[in-house]
Amino acid sequence: MNNDNTLSKPYLLGADDLTPQDVKLIFDKAQFFMDNFKRGEKFSDLKGITVALAFFEPSTRTKLSFELAAKRLSADSISFASSSSSLTKGESLIDTLRTIEAMNVQMYVVRHVNSGVPLFLQTNTNGVILNAGDGKHEHPTQALLDAFTLYKHFGKLQGLKVCIAGDILHSRVARSNITLLRTMGADVALCSPGTLLPRHLNIWDLPILENIDAAVEWADVLLVLRLQRERMESGLLPSIREFSKFYGVSFEQFSRKPELVLMHPGPVNYGVELDYRVSSYPNCLIQTQVTHGVFIRMALLSLLSKFV
Amino acid sequence: MNNDNTLSKPYLLGADDLTPQDVKLIFDKAQFFMDNFKRGEKFSDLKGITVALAFFEPSTRTKLSFELAAKRLSADSISFASSSSSLTKGESLIDTLRTIEAMNVQMYVVRHVNSGVPLFLQTNTNGVILNAGDGKHEHPTQALLDAFTLYKHFGKLQGLKVCIAGDILHSRVARSNITLLRTMGADVALCSPGTLLPRHLNIWDLPILENIDAAVEWADVLLVLRLQRERMESGLLPSIREFSKFYGVSFEQFSRKPELVLMHPGPVNYGVELDYRVSSYPNCLIQTQVTHGVFIRMALLSLLSKFV
Amino acid sequence: MNNDNTLSKPYLLGADDLTPQDVKLIFDKAQFFMDNFKRGEKFSDLKGITVALAFFEPSTRTKLSFELAAKRLSADSISFASSSSSLTKGESLIDTLRTIEAMNVQMYVVRHVNSGVPLFLQTNTNGVILNAGDGKHEHPTQALLDAFTLYKHFGKLQGLKVCIAGDILHSRVARSNITLLRTMGADVALCSPGTLLPRHLNIWDLPILENIDAAVEWADVLLVLRLQRERMESGLLPSIREFSKFYGVSFEQFSRKPELVLMHPGPVNYGVELDYRVSSYPNCLIQTQVTHGVFIRMALLSLLSKFV
Repeated sequence: MNNDNTLSKPYLLGADDLTPQDVKLIFDKAQFFMDNFKRGEKFSDLKGITVALAFFEPSTRTKLSFELAAKRLSADSISFASSSSSLTKGESLIDTLRTIEAMNVQMYVVRHVNSGVPLFLQTNTNGVILNAGDGKHEHPTQALLDAFTLYKHFGKLQGLKVCIAGDILHSRVARSNITLLRTMGADVALCSPGTLLPRHLNIWDLPILENIDAAVEWADVLLVLRLQRERMESGLLPSIREFSKFYGVSFEQFSRKPELVLMHPGPVNYGVELDYRVSSYPNCLIQTQVTHGVFIRMALLSLLSKFV
Repeated sequence: MNNDNTLSKPYLLGADDLTPQDVKLIFDKAQFFMDNFKRGEKFSDLKGITVALAFFEPSTRTKLSFELAAKRLSADSISFASSSSSLTKGESLIDTLRTIEAMNVQMYVVRHVNSGVPLFLQTNTNGVILNAGDGKHEHPTQALLDAFTLYKHFGKLQGLKVCIAGDILHSRVARSNITLLRTMGADVALCSPGTLLPRHLNIWDLPILENIDAAVEWADVLLVLRLQRERMESGLLPSIREFSKFYGVSFEQFSRKPELVLMHPGPVNYGVELDYRVSSYPNCLIQTQVTHGVFIRMALLSLLSKFV
Repeated sequence: MNNDNTLSKPYLLGADDLTPQDVKLIFDKAQFFMDNFKRGEKFSDLKGITVALAFFEPSTRTKLSFELAAKRLSADSISFASSSSSLTKGESLIDTLRTIEAMNVQMYVVRHVNSGVPLFLQTNTNGVILNAGDGKHEHPTQALLDAFTLYKHFGKLQGLKVCIAGDILHSRVARSNITLLRTMGADVALCSPGTLLPRHLNIWDLPILENIDAAVEWADVLLVLRLQRERMESGLLPSIREFSKFYGVSFEQFSRKPELVLMHPGPVNYGVELDYRVSSYPNCLIQTQVTHGVFIRMALLSLLSKFV
């Protein structure tokens, strides 16, 4: 199926499921919801549809964002999560989803600590699967809301210079963003200590910038990733102070290039990858990303509901 | 109160609360909801009523099933659970329910690890109580959805040969099913290792079938129970392998009698009480049971709401 | 802003935010909701507004009360709580609230183990903040529902003799009630062992009654507080038996003065601060307080929603 009003695939597992036409469709729909969101009114796109929020990995902002998106489209939503060991086995997970499916639950927003779980569920059940983050693999709705934020700021994505900075190795946000930004014709570069870059980096063929100074100079946009402290414990980083010095973004660097756009998927470790003062900088779009996130997820739920 | 459209009791604590007329009323209502369930529409039977889902014992499928049933009838629902030690004392539990009652919450779906808690609450509060499983005692909505599934498959319950297999001793599902199936005129037999049968079995006066081969030969329906692994630790079973050999249901046994109906309350331990391949067998009605479960619970909530 | 239909402040952090006019406005609104609450109907005061229930400290009754109040005003509500250590730092808490704000969530009902958190959030975010209990500081909605209960029982608050009994030292309920009752012209006295009275008691300038007998004799109303058992462990009380003897309320004491009104914020330790038989006494208004609590919270959500 592929016409002007329909996504090319009946699910969203990764950023590579999306054609430029799909992205345009999603952005238009998100913009429509944004323009028409009024206090006291709801959209009825998902009326009578039940959405399962199946978060097998703790999440606050992404879960709330999807929950609000579902509510504002008049969906019923059920939350479903488990740390039960029986659910760590794939077979049992499928049985659980098939059980919920049998209760007339049609759409599944899935987050899981293991890469590939959304794909596994999509191939083994009939529900519409929306990946809300799987392991180190993909987080496609984050990439879409990031791209939407850039699109609205710059009026285009084609030719935009975006540098992704920080812990690339463990980041599903980085993976999804690299794929989507290249689909849309942006130029992507990376900036990260060598130990936090994937080994088989050549599959991406991306320029590596040496430090944040170089990144600030080159980029239109800095997408800073969250440093996960446990990386240090595993010996991948000598010290947070050192990481912060070479790969953290300081207020001074920003002052030199005020037109530079800063994004971060959150939550931010202020003082580590980002100076706190940077957050009040006008081109720091972190809050805007969050606002757009709800509208992007409304767009996706609405467009994917056509496959229910 | 007992007329054509009203249940004979203003609560559902156990299967013995139900007359054949009650069961017919519930089945008709469930069938009505099933026939008229359309995407984009809700029933308004519980509009303005607040249902408390008071699950004091972990549950996924039963809780979701009731939650969806309540939503699809336009009820408000609140979830209420506690592992707090203060709530293990009966007196405190009643105080808690009276407090929630004082907030204009009218119906209570109660699951508790202790047998008799729903009865205790029903006699000490004014709320309409619906037992969602109490200890080893009763799980009447499971029995109703099982019976409804059989009724729809065979067109009758009278004279149907149903064998309940597995851990009868600890099973509230078995207890409720035995009562309800006999109320409806079915023939019930059991198939279980001696250590997993109740000691005072003579109160039921039911035939015991020696092994699954005998059960398959005799029965129209096999209702297989979940084996709880902790039974083994407590010395009631020599090994899972041995249990599985004599009391597990294999693919070969089914192939011999394809018209045999298989049911299981879930979640299934595949490879223990049931061969995984059996699950795709046409007369394996496990998913159908789940689907019917929501409609049966909608019927019960709707019929019991008349007593609010 | 201060006219006949608007609260004087766009938030509720403590009882001292409220003028007598505010209290009258809240009572009138609560009474309106009480008179017009009908099964099958909802009020639409908060339609399209999203209320975050941010309970960083465990709560059952207050959380359910606010949740029901929000639902009955047609609000969307999201629950948000965390025991995560990252959220114990104030800075991170503000970032979390700002993130949720960016998702178009307008009102925040906040409970936190630390005194001052609601104030901290109110001064650092744009959301409408409603304090649902912070540390040992304030619990203003409890004070309002207590005052409303007394107002409806006596027809006035002016000149009413209210004795607050029990663990004053650790009680936010006591603090909020003292402030609000004095705002409304009631006479307040305290009755508590010396170790459970605040050291700088002179700031209140309140009479201290020696024991419950004296309190029963003096008061129109006894507001009994919950004794938290951990007080004993910390050496503030010699034994529960002794506390109960001198500061617990017995059935006999009530029998002597049947017109005395008894209140308690719940949950009650029956047998410690209150004889169980007292709970069925006609002027024991504990259940009434709970019922009024939902209407008071509806009134507050409705009145504060004008500042969204």
